[in-house]
Amino acid sequence: MTPFVLDPRLADDCFVLVESDQFILLLMNNALIPWFILVPKTDKTELHELDSSTQTQIFSVINRLSAFISTDYKPDKINVAAIGNIVQQLHIHIVVRYKTDCYWPGVVWGGTEKQAYKEKNMEKVKLKLVSILEL
Amino acid sequence: MTPFVLDPRLADDCFVLVESDQFILLLMNNALIPWFILVPKTDKTELHELDSSTQTQIFSVINRLSAFISTDYKPDKINVAAIGNIVQQLHIHIVVRYKTDCYWPGVVWGGTEKQAYKEKNMEKVKLKLVSILEL
Repeated sequence: MTPFVLDPRLADDCFVLVESDQFILLLMNNALIPWFILVPKTDKTELHELDSSTQTQIFSVINRLSAFISTDYKPDKINVAAIGNIVQQLHIHIVVRYKTDCYWPGVVWGGTEKQAYKEKNMEKVKLKLVSILEL
Repeated sequence: MTPFVLDPRLADDCFVLVESDQFILLLMNNALIPWFILVPKTDKTELHELDSSTQTQIFSVINRLSAFISTDYKPDKINVAAIGNIVQQLHIHIVVRYKTDCYWPGVVWGGTEKQAYKEKNMEKVKLKLVSILEL
């Protein structure tokens, strides 16, 4: 089997938080918005093309991540989206939104306001996520 | 139990294609983009708050609708998203995208280009969807 290779645009824009046999969880390098991206290790490009057990696994990760976000970040909304108009590799955005954030009430895609994470802040998020996803 | 009431903004912007005990499937009244909106009959506002059997039902509808879109519309991409920054009632966008559409490669949310459906064209979509979703 060909090893899974993360799309270079995702690799450039994000940190890898967690990697398992089934998926990679990324954090967009934009400290203005807590923005996670879940990348199933598949060559399918649409959600409905995933086989049933992969879908179940992926939705289980989204559920656990969303429950963690709900408790830990206390957001006004969680945006969950598979878009992929630009990066074809299947990836699901899980974005923590506040009424006070720089994009509210608009969506985050296409926005240009950015601020790189400080290394220690990114590491804090990483530490939490590893334990939440029980890897 | 209080009867489920569709958010008035969704009701204003969309046609009802299909209604079951569990959900309402809408078509955004914008003939420029085939744009479906699935509204689970729930008072939860986040996907992960749905109980497991409701999630399974909803994802099954999304899968069937996406498979239909894939065959019938032959799109370049399907965008699937739960956003809800403006309309709080839980609703999932399933948007048929082409590289030639007026918003590509951007997302459809926040866009202003619109064109109302002709009644007969909307009815055509409705007829197909009723049979696809086996109601």
